[in-house]
Amino acid sequence: MTSEANNILWQSLSVTKSARAAQKGQAAKCIWFTGLSGAGKTTIANLLDKKLHSRGMHTYILDGDNVRHGLNRDLGFTDIDRIENIRRVAEVAKLMVDAGLIVLVSFISPFRVERLMARNLFEVGEFVEVYVATPLEECEKRDVKGLYAKARRGDLKNFTGLDSPYEEPQAAEIVLHTQAESSDVCVDRVLQVLA
Amino acid sequence: MTSEANNILWQSLSVTKSARAAQKGQAAKCIWFTGLSGAGKTTIANLLDKKLHSRGMHTYILDGDNVRHGLNRDLGFTDIDRIENIRRVAEVAKLMVDAGLIVLVSFISPFRVERLMARNLFEVGEFVEVYVATPLEECEKRDVKGLYAKARRGDLKNFTGLDSPYEEPQAAEIVLHTQAESSDVCVDRVLQVLA
Repeated sequence: MTSEANNILWQSLSVTKSARAAQKGQAAKCIWFTGLSGAGKTTIANLLDKKLHSRGMHTYILDGDNVRHGLNRDLGFTDIDRIENIRRVAEVAKLMVDAGLIVLVSFISPFRVERLMARNLFEVGEFVEVYVATPLEECEKRDVKGLYAKARRGDLKNFTGLDSPYEEPQAAEIVLHTQAESSDVCVDRVLQVLA
Repeated sequence: MTSEANNILWQSLSVTKSARAAQKGQAAKCIWFTGLSGAGKTTIANLLDKKLHSRGMHTYILDGDNVRHGLNRDLGFTDIDRIENIRRVAEVAKLMVDAGLIVLVSFISPFRVERLMARNLFEVGEFVEVYVATPLEECEKRDVKGLYAKARRGDLKNFTGLDSPYEEPQAAEIVLHTQAESSDVCVDRVLQVLA
């Protein structure tokens, strides 16, 4: 017995990625924010989104927490589920880039191999990795969501930076230091690279 | 031990769905094409996409076959996998509607309950179900991909319309009869409903 899986043909569609992007007056991109919980990824992505939108750019934000309420609601926090979480988000970002959008992805995405997997889905120049390099001590000091305290108490397992590793990017297109620079300055640095 | 799952907060983002849609000069929609394999769903969706695009609308097509090459590549054709296939596509369509796009979804989506699940993800008026009501005999006669012949030979199991049911929509917003009307006429009927 074969399944239908061997019988899936790629459907050629008429309106191309470049046509969809050209209509929007922009180059489609995936801007991938990585960093520890509390590093400031979503704050910066959100501010960047506002600035791009106010300039007439067509954008969207895929936020780690929000996607877990919908598309990835069936996934937990085991290693396998974390990888699948990232894989799906990267595939959705690819579809949105195909739709001509500038997609901002805000995900801890702690493992190099998964960020590389995401990058490899895109054409050269489409994927921009932004490392929000706030040190662990600073993230823990801020602890906006109270998660570090919870993890230190042992009430939260596999927490990135504590009992689960964060592998720093070695060749991110952009590295942001939120302790030294304001969110506005960080966003402007991303805008310069995009321009 | 609790997991991180209980600690996911919804991130409020600044640029709203209505702002993203208004920027594009349109109301965001999910136009959901359902019908048998070979009914003409993708042909009509593709033509509609071209017409909408040429009018300056911002659109995207999620095609069943194409999504199975990426986001849903891990899914097979068991009942559970078919449901998960539709769930993910509906969630992606929801994200794209949130991005302000008019999303055309072309999926056999044979079960009423899964189409209802998709509909329920959207706000009232955002979801437009289009039943491409080409009868089985006609789809089998066309058999563009040769799949019906393969299924009749027993080389393909769980084929919708043959050994797997297709539940006809009872309250689709639009019903198209591709035997009686050309693709152009079918598309114009969808455009009238959208206008």
